[in-house]
Amino acid sequence: MKKYTDLNTSARILLGPGPSTVSPRVLRAMAHPLVGHLDPQFIALMNEVQELLRFVFQTENRLTIPVSGTGSAGMEALCNFVEPGDAVLVGVNGYFGERLCDVAGRYGGEVRRLERPWGDVFTAEEIEKALQERPAKLVALVHAETSTGALQPMEGIADVVHRHGGLLLLDCVTSLGGVPVNIDAWDVDIAYSGTQKCLSCPPGLAPLTVGPRAVEALHQRKSRVANWYLDLTMIEKYWGSERTYHHTAPISMNYALREALRLIYEEGLEKRFERHRANAAALWKGLEALGLQPHVPLDHRLPTLTTVLVPEGIDEGAIRRRLLDEYNIEIAGGLGIFKGRAWRIGLMGYSSRRENVLLLLSALESLLA
Amino acid sequence: MKKYTDLNTSARILLGPGPSTVSPRVLRAMAHPLVGHLDPQFIALMNEVQELLRFVFQTENRLTIPVSGTGSAGMEALCNFVEPGDAVLVGVNGYFGERLCDVAGRYGGEVRRLERPWGDVFTAEEIEKALQERPAKLVALVHAETSTGALQPMEGIADVVHRHGGLLLLDCVTSLGGVPVNIDAWDVDIAYSGTQKCLSCPPGLAPLTVGPRAVEALHQRKSRVANWYLDLTMIEKYWGSERTYHHTAPISMNYALREALRLIYEEGLEKRFERHRANAAALWKGLEALGLQPHVPLDHRLPTLTTVLVPEGIDEGAIRRRLLDEYNIEIAGGLGIFKGRAWRIGLMGYSSRRENVLLLLSALESLLA
Repeated sequence: MKKYTDLNTSARILLGPGPSTVSPRVLRAMAHPLVGHLDPQFIALMNEVQELLRFVFQTENRLTIPVSGTGSAGMEALCNFVEPGDAVLVGVNGYFGERLCDVAGRYGGEVRRLERPWGDVFTAEEIEKALQERPAKLVALVHAETSTGALQPMEGIADVVHRHGGLLLLDCVTSLGGVPVNIDAWDVDIAYSGTQKCLSCPPGLAPLTVGPRAVEALHQRKSRVANWYLDLTMIEKYWGSERTYHHTAPISMNYALREALRLIYEEGLEKRFERHRANAAALWKGLEALGLQPHVPLDHRLPTLTTVLVPEGIDEGAIRRRLLDEYNIEIAGGLGIFKGRAWRIGLMGYSSRRENVLLLLSALESLLA
Repeated sequence: MKKYTDLNTSARILLGPGPSTVSPRVLRAMAHPLVGHLDPQFIALMNEVQELLRFVFQTENRLTIPVSGTGSAGMEALCNFVEPGDAVLVGVNGYFGERLCDVAGRYGGEVRRLERPWGDVFTAEEIEKALQERPAKLVALVHAETSTGALQPMEGIADVVHRHGGLLLLDCVTSLGGVPVNIDAWDVDIAYSGTQKCLSCPPGLAPLTVGPRAVEALHQRKSRVANWYLDLTMIEKYWGSERTYHHTAPISMNYALREALRLIYEEGLEKRFERHRANAAALWKGLEALGLQPHVPLDHRLPTLTTVLVPEGIDEGAIRRRLLDEYNIEIAGGLGIFKGRAWRIGLMGYSSRRENVLLLLSALESLLA
């Protein structure tokens, strides 16, 4: 009979694109004994999770919830806003823009791609031009492209989308909790994220916020949502005042998320963003001193995730393996066009620490010497 | 500024239809610091989770994985085996049979209902008769109906389904780990469960096993799977030898599931099933002594979940509230036709204990006096 031992993993320092390191406080909250998912005490906790999510999304949206799946399930929730034949405009400047096209297409969306080279971002003007050529019911953009490290500026974008009668959906997987995400000020209609990036909570939930225009569109659908599990017309009743049973919420994950959000609430958003900016700046300076160049220009470079081009002649996988094996540091390789050509370094949430920057730079220096 | 306190929930004894009480060992494993989801150490752990899932499902199926969502996401994974226009036969004898119809219909299945009163089960003969009238690509049954407490006998069923060219899908949400589930011996093609029932792991993952016939059908699909997040043609590469990135697995939930499965492995399946049977028998005897009648006849009554009819003149909700408030015991009300008319009592996994039976019976006795 095979023996299964106690868990005995190494003490990793998680500096990749997620998961980031989880605070001991969050781990402890997650290990709290369970109450039932319809227990009045859990329902009170659901309310707090919703309040705290509104705080990090900077929104008053009533329909602000953690979707019961990982960040990818947050993206999949776009199924609520796409019906067969709907025109969808997707900004594609990296891997997750590509995936948005895939997901929207599966739900019958007539997907049109607005393309930019990987690492670039879009202007409001070019989005307007595309919508003048052909309007779209839904315009989907990636706020922080995890595959490139580019940060999409949001000024003027919603205005253009709304003027042309569309809804604006924003992928905030690698931005929420690490850089400003101002859903109401930006007038974004739908946004989602994942817990394991800048929120520094284990993966397993996808924060989602849906504004009034999008709720109205949801209620005006002509067809049922094709995906039962993510059908917001039912889920909004579970997370709303009715508390109608839909599916069993992942209770322990909600314990963890509440604690992770509470940490952000205690730190304060501005202070947290400043911490992410300062540690990223230190990383970039150190990388440049090592002769390593971030791919994205400074003016739209994401502080939470940096894509670094690997110098000619270096086996990027071998360096990553040595970082992991010799220093317990995880960084990631490139995705898509960057496969084998870049490293991705995340400084997100609990992982965004001065000591982590210094350690990584020192380790890289010795491995590249 | 609102104050968010430390988690401070009551010490509930979970005797409803799930979540069941989680072992301290599982809580502790869940709180273990995270490694990355592509870390070689996590990949080794994924292999162990798969082995242990095969052990509880009693199967050799290679494609045996925890789906990254709750039990409902396991049901939703039937999207992999339904294409628009496919004939689907669903056994409807409770709430979850109803839901199977809903989910299959959303993916374009031509759903035919085989109906039985709530609490009844189906015979192989009537399934054969239905398939003779009209064959189905997929036949979906609920092994353990959480809304009624009925246990579907499996003898001869797969034989009939296969003889008529169909695939057999089985909902094992409230059976896996509590009563025998013999996927290979019964020749079931697709089965799924949830973690928060008889596995006594927090909710958040859905064990799924897919046999060779169903894998073949998956690879022969004419259309893409409509649901990106649950698309097994991609997920099998993440959980297979290729380990291709699809989505980030819920790492901590997999830690928890591994430990919950390890507990089952240590206890042994036969001993575990016997424990569930013995505690259920004690519960039933005690309920009858209190004049309370389980709804389902003994010959197909589920040991893990019992539906008890509430005597005339008793406010079922008030009793449940008092059980919770005065004794910290959670049981559930009825679903669907049983709403307001029945209690549902679960003795699942770690909750299936002699002391829980005695305590619940004593508390009920004093509240009904």
